[in-house]
Amino acid sequence: MPIYNAPVQDIQFLLQDVLHVSESGVPGYEDLEADFTSAVLEEAGKVARDVLAPLNASGDAEGCVLENGVVRTPKGFDAAFKAMKDGGWTALDCDPAYGGQGLPYVMGTAVGEIFVAANMAFNMYQGLTHGAYSAIHTHGTDAQKAMYLPKMVSCDWTGTMNLTEPHCGTDLGLMRTKAEPQDDGSYLITGQKIFISAGEHDLAENIIHLVLAKAPGGGEGTRGVSLFIVPKFLVGDDGALGARNGVAVGSIERKMGIHGNATCVMNYDGAKGWLLGDLHKGMKAMFTMMNEARLGVGLQGYAVAEAAYQNAVVYARDRLQGRDVTGAKNPTGPADPLIVHPDIRRSLMDQKSFVEGARAFTFWGAHLIDRSVRAGDADAEGLISLLTPVIKGFLTDKGFEMAVQAQQVWGGHGYIEENGMSQFVRDARIAQIYEGANGVQALDLVGRKLAQDGGKHVMAFFEMIKGFIKENQEDARMTPFTDPLKAASKDVQAAAMYFMQNGVKNPNNALAGSTDFLHMMGHVCLGLMWARIAKEAYAGLDAGTGDAGFLNTKIATGQYYMARQLPATGLHLARIETGAAPVMALAADAF
Amino acid sequence: MPIYNAPVQDIQFLLQDVLHVSESGVPGYEDLEADFTSAVLEEAGKVARDVLAPLNASGDAEGCVLENGVVRTPKGFDAAFKAMKDGGWTALDCDPAYGGQGLPYVMGTAVGEIFVAANMAFNMYQGLTHGAYSAIHTHGTDAQKAMYLPKMVSCDWTGTMNLTEPHCGTDLGLMRTKAEPQDDGSYLITGQKIFISAGEHDLAENIIHLVLAKAPGGGEGTRGVSLFIVPKFLVGDDGALGARNGVAVGSIERKMGIHGNATCVMNYDGAKGWLLGDLHKGMKAMFTMMNEARLGVGLQGYAVAEAAYQNAVVYARDRLQGRDVTGAKNPTGPADPLIVHPDIRRSLMDQKSFVEGARAFTFWGAHLIDRSVRAGDADAEGLISLLTPVIKGFLTDKGFEMAVQAQQVWGGHGYIEENGMSQFVRDARIAQIYEGANGVQALDLVGRKLAQDGGKHVMAFFEMIKGFIKENQEDARMTPFTDPLKAASKDVQAAAMYFMQNGVKNPNNALAGSTDFLHMMGHVCLGLMWARIAKEAYAGLDAGTGDAGFLNTKIATGQYYMARQLPATGLHLARIETGAAPVMALAADAF
Repeated sequence: MPIYNAPVQDIQFLLQDVLHVSESGVPGYEDLEADFTSAVLEEAGKVARDVLAPLNASGDAEGCVLENGVVRTPKGFDAAFKAMKDGGWTALDCDPAYGGQGLPYVMGTAVGEIFVAANMAFNMYQGLTHGAYSAIHTHGTDAQKAMYLPKMVSCDWTGTMNLTEPHCGTDLGLMRTKAEPQDDGSYLITGQKIFISAGEHDLAENIIHLVLAKAPGGGEGTRGVSLFIVPKFLVGDDGALGARNGVAVGSIERKMGIHGNATCVMNYDGAKGWLLGDLHKGMKAMFTMMNEARLGVGLQGYAVAEAAYQNAVVYARDRLQGRDVTGAKNPTGPADPLIVHPDIRRSLMDQKSFVEGARAFTFWGAHLIDRSVRAGDADAEGLISLLTPVIKGFLTDKGFEMAVQAQQVWGGHGYIEENGMSQFVRDARIAQIYEGANGVQALDLVGRKLAQDGGKHVMAFFEMIKGFIKENQEDARMTPFTDPLKAASKDVQAAAMYFMQNGVKNPNNALAGSTDFLHMMGHVCLGLMWARIAKEAYAGLDAGTGDAGFLNTKIATGQYYMARQLPATGLHLARIETGAAPVMALAADAF
Repeated sequence: MPIYNAPVQDIQFLLQDVLHVSESGVPGYEDLEADFTSAVLEEAGKVARDVLAPLNASGDAEGCVLENGVVRTPKGFDAAFKAMKDGGWTALDCDPAYGGQGLPYVMGTAVGEIFVAANMAFNMYQGLTHGAYSAIHTHGTDAQKAMYLPKMVSCDWTGTMNLTEPHCGTDLGLMRTKAEPQDDGSYLITGQKIFISAGEHDLAENIIHLVLAKAPGGGEGTRGVSLFIVPKFLVGDDGALGARNGVAVGSIERKMGIHGNATCVMNYDGAKGWLLGDLHKGMKAMFTMMNEARLGVGLQGYAVAEAAYQNAVVYARDRLQGRDVTGAKNPTGPADPLIVHPDIRRSLMDQKSFVEGARAFTFWGAHLIDRSVRAGDADAEGLISLLTPVIKGFLTDKGFEMAVQAQQVWGGHGYIEENGMSQFVRDARIAQIYEGANGVQALDLVGRKLAQDGGKHVMAFFEMIKGFIKENQEDARMTPFTDPLKAASKDVQAAAMYFMQNGVKNPNNALAGSTDFLHMMGHVCLGLMWARIAKEAYAGLDAGTGDAGFLNTKIATGQYYMARQLPATGLHLARIETGAAPVMALAADAF
């Protein structure tokens, strides 16, 4: 069975030594001192190792079962869910007014990584509830918040997000689900939603569905869409559960992965719903959740890669095969461990340097969200809005690729389901698809975010990199970081310039390069993270504080990323500069 | 259910207009005139579409079942296998002396692609038999050939290859399976083999296992290894089946993909075996099969990608979502088809340009094998020996990546098993692993093949490219092909030079770049293929022969590959030139 150990030392280093959370002046961050965050992370690590990870493979093998309208989750999920609730983990970064612990989002993110890495499918029940909680918390009336949030913070009730319909995914303007207003102010919701994660299951007393539907009078396309709260069981004013609402699971999907989470077809047949937020402003309400939700999916990408990487390392150390060409490392054994072989090292370094860089990027993103939400920092909000599609798209594309590399280290044994490496690959795959497929992320980045607020945020991003390079130009030890970062940043700027100069006459000149642009932005962000990490690692070494072995490993891992991964920006730029012509050359019927 | 249509026009174009098979002077190729190859391919396409493809998804869902020592293949496999046998397809490129039709290997390859694309797992029963047939054909005595080959050509009996043991995969020197010589000249084989594809099943009267085992007196490591024929049922001198031999399936694996093919643990308990080839020369006997076997796996990589691509195209044309930003293409419908969107085009062009280039590369490889085997061409043998790890490693890495891209076009629907896109990904994954994991291919290429015969073959390869560029320098239309090819070839030569200059003092300087080198070689080979294709396409257009639409599509697809894929060689070179230092920087316990 695969192992999982929470990377507490790395997370602590990022929070305390790179982000300097407790000194950052963000309201609520003052509590995040090293002893406190360490205690929380250690405890989360125990839950992950002892409760969640042991159910990952069995949950995958068993899957969810639909019988007589009831979805049965895999064996052990109910007890584990109770343990998560009892431990207060579901309430970690929720509002104390509704029973939450009020910790910042960056802590929810750090703990979230640990839980997702241990068991992605299981953690989705809680993760989706958190998303629905945020939507109600942001857009609900006081009465709605009082009615739903306490039970959702505790996960006695779970939540869902209902957007997709059979014929409409990205293009929500095609939506057919209808909301008919009733005299009592409620609506009757009718239609079919698909791909509803945790749409039905046996872990909670009630399920609070947030449903996008078209109410009369809103006009065509997405303008007519509103967001509704549709509970599985109606809730009385006293909070007691009442009658079953007109919503039911139609079927559950047989999927490539995340078998432990039920993906449901939900049928709404005149189900009672209540408007959440403003009428006909459902899309806007959804979009305010987007940064968090997409960051959460980017996190899944690298968290699963972390778990896969840990198991690749175990195998590379244990499996004896062949000899080190520079001299036997295990001369008394029948062969050397795989880890002596340069191509295995190359693979492990790819994985390690990605995962650790991705973790830093994601925590930085969460920190920006905290700055935006808790400190009203508009620059932080603009920056995270720009970077969100990069976090989502790049980290899930690369996370999947790294899970595949981890599986590859296991050779034929990686293809056998019982060893668990296949599950990492199959689970990681969904993160590239849901919450906006990665092509849509690239479109969002190039078609919308680059030019947002007159291009101010991307300019600020470039300035930030320039500033960092300038600040560190005196330190020769930083050159292996700042030189590649400068070159890569120049590539990204050249690409942005190409879009500006060629996108006006034909927007396809920009869109044809959108995925390449997303990836080059991702590389530059990870390069910036590694440069910052190196700076703090050198500072720690100079001060004689911290674990020298750990800090030197950080520097070497970062140097690997800068030398061998960051130059990818040049290839992406070359592709982008070919423009739309080669991409759009064929007639649609020539494929 | 996924569709599959054999790409007969493209295969015909490659055989007739690019390889000019019937005029190539290779013995046996004189029969390969256009009408004949077309008829064979059309017929194979019908079998693939009507018999094999319909069993692909059901075979995946159902899998193989082991009950009381018997493996039951999925429903319909037995009838389909009978249809393949009755149609003579199993005998296509086998020796007429044993009932084969004697067609060249290049035709077996072309037909093989069609069958593999339609149903990879099913086709393995026949494919492995062909491998065992080749081994016996090359190394067997006349009596062995007479006893086994006719039944294997007809696939009344199937074959297997038994190499791997639980503790030994790549490093066969660790092998424990023993062969004890008996007075009658036979051996008793004892040991356990794992990952034996088609090791047990219900499709054939007998199964002929080829087993690597250690016979006394051969010395340590692989030197002691010999190859044995171990039939499931002993065969009398009259060819009649006798007693059951001491070999049995212990269990079958639950795998990520190729569910329709039984992957068996085989237990040999004093099973009677007969030496195949020379005593203690089992590795050498295996290696003579290697070029064909590895080419066959490379073929799986792109064949599955072809099937996935066809289904991505169908979905991209049918699914209506969003609008073309340059103006609606389906103004009377609710939305435009996905195929109008540049990022979807980018993905489809990636897939199309890879698959068609890979097909050309593989057919060229098969042609080189025919030249080597049928015409005794030592240069062809040296060249295919060099290119074999590239065909296997590059085409399976990229084939998998393209299957993932095809799945991505389907969005969330691609993650649902019943749509079949997940299966393409899961099936394609194994090709990167078996028949020598791709890291081992890279090691073979850089550690062995580059320097083979004093580096003569790689020099000849570079000269061939130089010659092509020179021949075509007068034709300005070829510049978009020859310029990138020249640049990419220069990158590969620089990498080879780096290995020469730095690999002597530390071989890890070469091995750390081995996977990058394999990929840059792959890109250059596909670039060369596209350049050759473009030349023939222009020739066809100039002559007014052929289908102008098809030829123009070829040129545009090739231009895409040259402009957007070939520049990857620069990135690989940059990585290679960082040497071993960043890759090997960490101590083994720092991961």
